Parts: sequence; structure tokens; C-alpha cells
Amino acid sequence: ASAACVGSGRWAGCVRRLSMAKSKFEYVRDFEADDTCLPNCWIVVRLDGRNFHRFSEQHEFKKPNDDRALQLMTKCAQTVMQELEDIAIAYGQSDEYSFVFKKKSRWFKRRASKFMTHVVSQFASSYVFYWKDYFKDQQLLYPPGFDGRIVLYPSNQNLKDYLSWRQADCHINNLYNTVFWMLVQRSGLTPVQAQDRLQGTLAGDKNEILFSEFNINYNNEPLMYRKGTVLIWQKTNEVMTKKIKLPKEAEEKEVEVTRTKTKVVPLHCDIIGDQFWEEYPEILAEDS
Amino acid sequence: ASAACVGSGRWAGCVRRLSMAKSKFEYVRDFEADDTCLPNCWIVVRLDGRNFHRFSEQHEFKKPNDDRALQLMTKCAQTVMQELEDIAIAYGQSDEYSFVFKKKSRWFKRRASKFMTHVVSQFASSYVFYWKDYFKDQQLLYPPGFDGRIVLYPSNQNLKDYLSWRQADCHINNLYNTVFWMLVQRSGLTPVQAQDRLQGTLAGDKNEILFSEFNINYNNEPLMYRKGTVLIWQKTNEVMTKKIKLPKEAEEKEVEVTRTKTKVVPLHCDIIGDQFWEEYPEILAEDS
Amino acid sequence: ASAACVGSGRWAGCVRRLSMAKSKFEYVRDFEADDTCLPNCWIVVRLDGRNFHRFSEQHEFKKPNDDRALQLMTKCAQTVMQELEDIAIAYGQSDEYSFVFKKKSRWFKRRASKFMTHVVSQFASSYVFYWKDYFKDQQLLYPPGFDGRIVLYPSNQNLKDYLSWRQADCHINNLYNTVFWMLVQRSGLTPVQAQDRLQGTLAGDKNEILFSEFNINYNNEPLMYRKGTVLIWQKTNEVMTKKIKLPKEAEEKEVEVTRTKTKVVPLHCDIIGDQFWEEYPEILAEDS
Amino acid sequence: ASAACVGSGRWAGCVRRLSMAKSKFEYVRDFEADDTCLPNCWIVVRLDGRNFHRFSEQHEFKKPNDDRALQLMTKCAQTVMQELEDIAIAYGQSDEYSFVFKKKSRWFKRRASKFMTHVVSQFASSYVFYWKDYFKDQQLLYPPGFDGRIVLYPSNQNLKDYLSWRQADCHINNLYNTVFWMLVQRSGLTPVQAQDRLQGTLAGDKNEILFSEFNINYNNEPLMYRKGTVLIWQKTNEVMTKKIKLPKEAEEKEVEVTRTKTKVVPLHCDIIGDQFWEEYPEILAEDS
Repeated sequence: ASAACVGSGRWAGCVRRLSMAKSKFEYVRDFEADDTCLPNCWIVVRLDGRNFHRFSEQHEFKKPNDDRALQLMTKCAQTVMQELEDIAIAYGQSDEYSFVFKKKSRWFKRRASKFMTHVVSQFASSYVFYWKDYFKDQQLLYPPGFDGRIVLYPSNQNLKDYLSWRQADCHINNLYNTVFWMLVQRSGLTPVQAQDRLQGTLAGDKNEILFSEFNINYNNEPLMYRKGTVLIWQKTNEVMTKKIKLPKEAEEKEVEVTRTKTKVVPLHCDIIGDQFWEEYPEILAEDS
Repeated sequence: ASAACVGSGRWAGCVRRLSMAKSKFEYVRDFEADDTCLPNCWIVVRLDGRNFHRFSEQHEFKKPNDDRALQLMTKCAQTVMQELEDIAIAYGQSDEYSFVFKKKSRWFKRRASKFMTHVVSQFASSYVFYWKDYFKDQQLLYPPGFDGRIVLYPSNQNLKDYLSWRQADCHINNLYNTVFWMLVQRSGLTPVQAQDRLQGTLAGDKNEILFSEFNINYNNEPLMYRKGTVLIWQKTNEVMTKKIKLPKEAEEKEVEVTRTKTKVVPLHCDIIGDQFWEEYPEILAEDS
Repeated sequence: ASAACVGSGRWAGCVRRLSMAKSKFEYVRDFEADDTCLPNCWIVVRLDGRNFHRFSEQHEFKKPNDDRALQLMTKCAQTVMQELEDIAIAYGQSDEYSFVFKKKSRWFKRRASKFMTHVVSQFASSYVFYWKDYFKDQQLLYPPGFDGRIVLYPSNQNLKDYLSWRQADCHINNLYNTVFWMLVQRSGLTPVQAQDRLQGTLAGDKNEILFSEFNINYNNEPLMYRKGTVLIWQKTNEVMTKKIKLPKEAEEKEVEVTRTKTKVVPLHCDIIGDQFWEEYPEILAEDS
Repeated sequence: ASAACVGSGRWAGCVRRLSMAKSKFEYVRDFEADDTCLPNCWIVVRLDGRNFHRFSEQHEFKKPNDDRALQLMTKCAQTVMQELEDIAIAYGQSDEYSFVFKKKSRWFKRRASKFMTHVVSQFASSYVFYWKDYFKDQQLLYPPGFDGRIVLYPSNQNLKDYLSWRQADCHINNLYNTVFWMLVQRSGLTPVQAQDRLQGTLAGDKNEILFSEFNINYNNEPLMYRKGTVLIWQKTNEVMTKKIKLPKEAEEKEVEVTRTKTKVVPLHCDIIGDQFWEEYPEILAEDS
């Protein structure tokens, strides 16, 4: 089937040669490197939107927080948790989401490329698929990109510190953005002026500006903005009504059936302190 | 802003503590491993559809080849080539696509995770985004997943052998599938019967079955099915008519303007032999 | 200073060109890959003698155990622990030694190649250097080779299991070798006959042969043979007599001075059970 | 055979338990990462002396070049080339040596750790073993250490540039050291004064100092100092006289027998220009 075969009338021979050719070329498989993750470590895949600054402007995201965008991110993350194996917990804020695979996961033999690419591709396709459910008439202008990275954490403390790092980052950014956009939207500062005003300010100063100039107590801002979103698995009881007909009886009967389902549930709580981990000990449990 | 702060009235202090906390947690960044690709090697990212056997059945793909599905794959691959940097050539068949980044690429400092995740996420979001352009009334039932892997090839010969391996694979599979589905669709065999019939047959045997039983000369099958799709960059001249008004003249004048654009062009040709590489020497050129 | 310069009388210019050349070539440094070990994991380097079967025959090692050879191995391992940084414990048997670097070690930025090559080169040079102290008149015929590998263990349990694996291996091999060489040396079997005799026997069978045929209770064999050698750091008090002269007194005075030194100490104890780890908790201590 | 067994009289059972224990612990093998080198690349292992500044002072190395030390390094490198497989060329200067393994080498399945540790351990043991052949009465005070690293080069040009980089480095250092030690040894400057004097000088300035102050034409300095040492394989014919006795003849007869041997030969030539590579084309030959 190479060029030389075309029109030769001896096509059968060509395909056979190709089949032999394949085995001749197959040595190229040996160039693929092994990328197995070290066993007994938490595997974290963090995903980030590509050029989401531009994307958020072109799609008129509300500043500093757009509920539709945040909820769509969470919907995609839930899809990732349901479609992929062994994700114990996920945490998201802004245009990023972190997925934590269980220490003992043997999914795809712990190959790093499998974890990364399955997460970002499932997330990206879901983002377009579910877009209209959240953005209604706001058309999606082009297919967005995401990048991903993988990091291993040997101990539970390392993992908790990773998640704390992301939540602390959420808080710092959200506090800054909240003040910044107040200055722009309410006080009429230009972005550059707002930036200058905030240069060098500490957290306390920003809280003070919010309180004294805009009468906003930052701690009353929505938890989703301040804490980001934690996704965990929770058992839920679903009560369904089922019609059954017993052989000896003439009529159908309605029966209540309770099914236990495990669902991905979003929370907007603190995960830096101990309380969360004490409340959900199964997340870090040894068999995880 | 930890749990202890809530309702304490001392929220300002809490945010400051968080800011310090962030730096306390930031050590977790050191756990991220460097995954820089060896310089002066071709970087190949190959993407595969996840569970596309099931996906193709649920979306009623025509067997053995569905033009809509193949063309959508190619549309997504084109988008990837246009949105990402330094892709010299791509090759696709069935539910897979390989993207070849230039030897000298410095994109994202050659970090493997960046290459893999940008490719698969852009491809996945494009798949959903452009679905309706190809599948019309056939609704997309759920967001599909893709996986990706990265392989380095030090020499041009290694790279050509890699692409030859994929094209030989395309041919072998397509020949098998063409006969298989003829036996099922035209001769009424069950899938198991068709499989049994083909067990142990060589390429020549399959060609013979196609010819004698179905009057099909395999070599006349569409090139896209037999060769897959090669995507390369090509300069094209676009002639546009522009209206201009010269200062000294009273009326507008129509002028033809020629713009040279570089476009991603699909080909369905043999890439195993030398002819293709001689025709497009710039693909492997040293500065690539 | 390139060939063209020789005899040209223009040597000064040549060296300047070389200096520029160096920077022209320096891009090759970018090809060196980062091989940093994941933080917060135990780093184990295991070293093995290369072709020590042949080496032991050529140097007439006593079978199944040669005290001189075992003690020389331990001397080399002690040297490695003293010369390198952050080794918490080492374990050796036969022609292998494992070195365990502390979880928190920052030595050479945790670069794997540094750990491996420093261990094996220091061990190898020490082997030749100290040979005569143990082998006396038995000349060393040629310089021996060693290979090394590196493995990370995230948890204390993983590390203990690694060391248990090596000690269990020591026991199994030593039991086998003890019976094998008894059959050869005392019963006059050929090596092949001895091997056949032991084929398929369980540990109990081997103990039985030793006891019934050679009146040997395996448990009374030297601990060093059965357990291998554990090297740990221990504080020791050295009492020295020092002569001092106080300013106000006419004569010198002898004073006893106690200095605390940390030394590498060999043990031949069980490290599979908990007792050892309870006795030396500092080995696995968190700040390790 | 755990602590609990000692003195229990039930030793047989203990060993059996150990044997089972071994398989229970064997999971720790899965923690070893694959470190296969990318195929079709030159594999370079570079070795450096550890703390050789101190080592050279304690062993009274002649400055700036000690023939004994350089020749011992070369003897060790020759041993490495002879004992290990697939080394095509080696280059050494000062206390470093680079070993180049063939592109197609399959030695130890191209595992990086094997290459590195075999090189440095063989080198280190040889250093002590052959010390007295070069240093005579100068006693070796302690066993020296070496470190090693591994780098891959995809193309012949990359490899030549690597070796050029090392030879350019040799030249620059040797020129500096030659002037430095002249200033110290002949002009009586302190090391600090000599350093200050050379601060900011170009190669031409250093040549000028050598020529005008010490009447030394740098280009007449020994090639080994200026170019370092290249080790290559060369075929040599060995003519031996053999006594043979033919059956029909009464007396023994002397016959000359020529045997072709491949030996490691040291050269002190330029390897930056093309001449060397044209003279020895087999070093980079494709089947290498």
C-alpha cells in the first residue's frame, strides 16, 4: 500500500508488506518512558484554565466572582470525580481545580500521563458540554484550553498542607479582588489607580477599606468566594416509591425502597483547620 | 479566616494569619518534579479516545468508518495545531491523533505535562464545541474523555518510523474492519462468526475475500480510510478585493490584495515512503 | 589552540577563540536532567558487588561465610556513613549493603545521582584501601566493581518492610548456603548433587538435615551470618586524661575529661520485629 | 528466627515463617523507579573527584599539573573502558573523566543507575588499587570519593559539542593555573595577590604574562596539560613467538604469530576541530 503499489495491480502483496513493515517500525514503542508514580503517595492533579483572563472578559464574567463560572467549574469537577477512579477529594477556586487520588490507587498502574490527561480532557469536554446549563444565552465563543500538572505527597500532613496552600491562596486573591473591584466599580477608580491604592497594603488594611468605604464586612461575603469549593463523596439515602405485584395478591402495591447512593457533594468550608478532617476521617483513612 | 475566626469579631487578624499561613504551606511546591523533555528531540503527543468503542455505538457511528467522526477528529486536531505552538505535523486515524512538536521547540520550557495536557484539553473541548457541525441532529449524549502520552524521538529516522508505525497500523486495522463489517452487514454473519472467519487470515486473504465475495478492490477504498489524515502547514495565497480611495482621486477604486497565510491542510497520502518527505522537506528541516 | 593554531605564531588569538568557543558549547549543559528525589521520603541506596561469585572464588572466600569479607564490607559501610551526610541506618549481608538517608535530608539538594555515586565510589575505594587489614597475606588480584540503585519509601512502615525484606532474604540464603556447603564439604556431594538434594525443600527440611546429619542447630549459628549487620549511630562517652596547669598553681594536674562522641556501631540483631525499633526510636524520629 | 524464637526450641517454625514473611515484604520492590535511558542517544557519564582540592594538597600534588595524578586518572579510566561494555570514547582532564557509551548500547537495558554506579565504583577501586604504581612512596592517606552524573545527547553534533566544552574548559583552566602558579612559585606572590593580578585578564593577557615575565610560550607546554586525555579503542598487532612441535618432526620449531588486539589508547590531541573525527570515523559510526 505504499505509493509504489498504486495502480500496480499487485495490491495484495502491498498490504502484506505493510504488515511486515509494522513490525519493523514497532521498535519505536521502546522510546516511551515509564512514568509510574511512587506507590503509597497521594497523587494530586491540578488543572488551570489557559488564558482565562482573556476568556473571562470575552464571556463577560461578573467581577470579582461569577457564580455561573464557578458553578460550571464545579459541575465539571464532579463529572471528573464520577467518571474517573479513586479520587478521594477535590478542591477548586477561581479557574483551577485540584484532584486528589487515593494513596493506594492502582488506576492505570499509577501512570502519571494517564492521570493528568484523563483529568484535563474530561474536564475540558465537560466545560463545553455543560456550558449552556449555566451560561444560558451567553454563547461560548471558542473551545477553552486547560493545563494540568501532577504532584505526589508522601504524608497526610503534606497533603493537608497542599490543600491549605490552595485555600489560603483563594482567600488572599479573593480579598484582593473584592477590594480591587469595589474601587473600580463603586469608587470609579481606573484599574491602575486601584492597583496603586492596594500596593503594599496588608490584609487588615484591605478589610478596613471594605468596611469603612463600602460598608462590607468581608467575613459576610459568600463562603464559596472566600473558601472555594471542596468536593467529597457522601452517602445519601434515596427513597423511591416502587409498584410491585405479589403473586398471591390481585392488586399492585406501592412500596418505599431506600437506596444508598454515594454522591459527590460540594462544600464551602474551611479545610485548613483540623475540624474538617475530624469530621470526615474516611478521606485520609489508611485504606485510602 | 479559619473556623476559629468565625463570629469572633476579630476577622482582620484572621486574614493576616492566613497570609502568613500561605507562606508556611508553600513548601509543598517543592514536591513538584521537573519534567523537562530532553532538548533536540522530536516531542510526540499521542491522544486516544477513552472507551470510544462504547461511544461510537451510543452515537451510531457508521461502521467501519464514519466520515463525520473522522472529520470532527481532524477539525479538533487542526484547532490544536492552531492554538498551540510549534507543532510541525500531525497524523490521525480512527480515534487517535499524534502531534509532533519541533525538535527545537522551547514552548513552556519543554515541560512534558504542559504539552500533554494542553493537547488533550484543547482537543476535548473542541470535540464538544464542533460536534454539531459534523453530527447535525445526532445529539452528543455525554462529554467524551481522551488520554494522552508523550514520547521523544532523537533522530528524523526515528520520527518517520513512528509515523510509519501509526500509518501501518491504520492500514492493518482498516483492512480488517472493512472485511469484518462486510461479512456482518452484507453476508449476515454475527460478529463472532465474522471474527472466526478472519482468524489467522493474512492481508492477501482479506483482500481476496473482499474481491471475490463483495467485488471490492480494497485499493479503491477512500484514501482517508486507508491512509488516515496527515496535517501539515501550508502557505496559501488569499486574493482579496479591497476598496481604497487615493487622496488625489475622487472615487474609490477596487484593488486586488494578495495575502500569504499559513494554514493547516489535511492530506491522505502515504507517509511511509520517501516521496512525502522529499515533497515537504521543511517539516524535518534542521531549524525545526 | 585548535589544530590550526599550532605553529602559527598567533597562539594568543587561539586561546581567546577557545574561551568564546566554550560559551558556544555550553548549551550542552541543558541536556542534564533534574533527578531530585521527592521530599519527605526515605532515600535508600542499595549497593551490590559486581560478579562477586567469581571474585569470592578467586580470593578463596571461606564458604558459606567468610568473616574477613563480611567484616571488610562492614568497615566500608562504616566509612560511607562517616564520610557522607544524613545516613540514619545501614544494613548489610553477603555482598550487598543498603544505606538509608533521612527523610528530611537536603544533602546535594536530594539529587539521586549524587547519592548513588557517592555511596558506591566511597565504598569501592574503601574496599581496596582496607582490604589488607582484613585479608592480610591474601593479595587483592584486581579492583572490584559495585553497582547501586536508589529507591524512595514514603512511610516508616515501607522503610521497615524494606529492611525486613533484606533481612528475610539474608536468612533464607544463609540457611540454604549453610546446608548446601555442609553437604558439599562434609558429605562429599558435588555442587550439583547438593543442589538436587535441596530442590523443593522447605525451611523446616533444611533445619532437619542440618540437625540430623550434621548435628547443627541452625539457631546456634553466629548471629552475623543469620541476621546480617545493622549499622546505627550511637553516642559513646570517651574518658580521657588531660594534663592542665592552672595559672595560680605551680604544678600540672591530671584531669579526667569525658567527651561524647557519636560512632557507627554494628549490631547483629533482628530488625523485623518491633523490639529493635522501640529500642532505637531516634532512627525513625520525625525530624529524621 | 525473630527475637521471639530464640531459645524456644521451635526454631524450625520460625524460619518457615520468615520465608513467608519475605514474600509479604516483597511489595517494596515496586517502589523502585524505572530509569531507562532514551534509546538512540549517546550516554555520557561524567565523574569528578570529591574534595580533590583538599586531596591534592594532602598528597602533595605538584602544581599546576601532577603527572602521577593525571596518569593514575587515565589508568583508572582505561580500566573502566576495559571492564565495562560499550564505551566508545572517554575524555579526561584534571580530576574529571567523561565516558561515552554507544548510542545503540543495550548494556543493562540502558538503566541510568547501572551506568553511573559501575563507572564510579570501578574508577574508585582502581584509583586505590593502582595508586602505588604512580605515587610510589607517597602513601595514600584515605580512600577518595568520586561523584558521577549522566547526560544524554541525541545527535553526533551534540556529543562533539559536549566533548569540545570539556576540552575548552581544560584549556581555560590550565592557562589560568599555569600563570597563577608561576606568579606564586616564581614571583613569590601570595595566592590572593596572584588571584588579584589575574582578575579580569583575558587569555591574551595571560599568554603575555607567561611570555614576558617567565619566558614561557604557552603553546609549548605539554599537550597532556593543554588538551587533556582522549581514550579510544585501537587495533594493534601483537607479534608473538610460539614454540610448536609438528607430529612428523623431531624438534620444536619457533613460529611467529600475529594477534590483533583492541586496546585502549591515550591521545592528547585537539577534539574540537573536525580533524580528529575525520581521522577516527568509527567512533561516531551509525552502528555505534
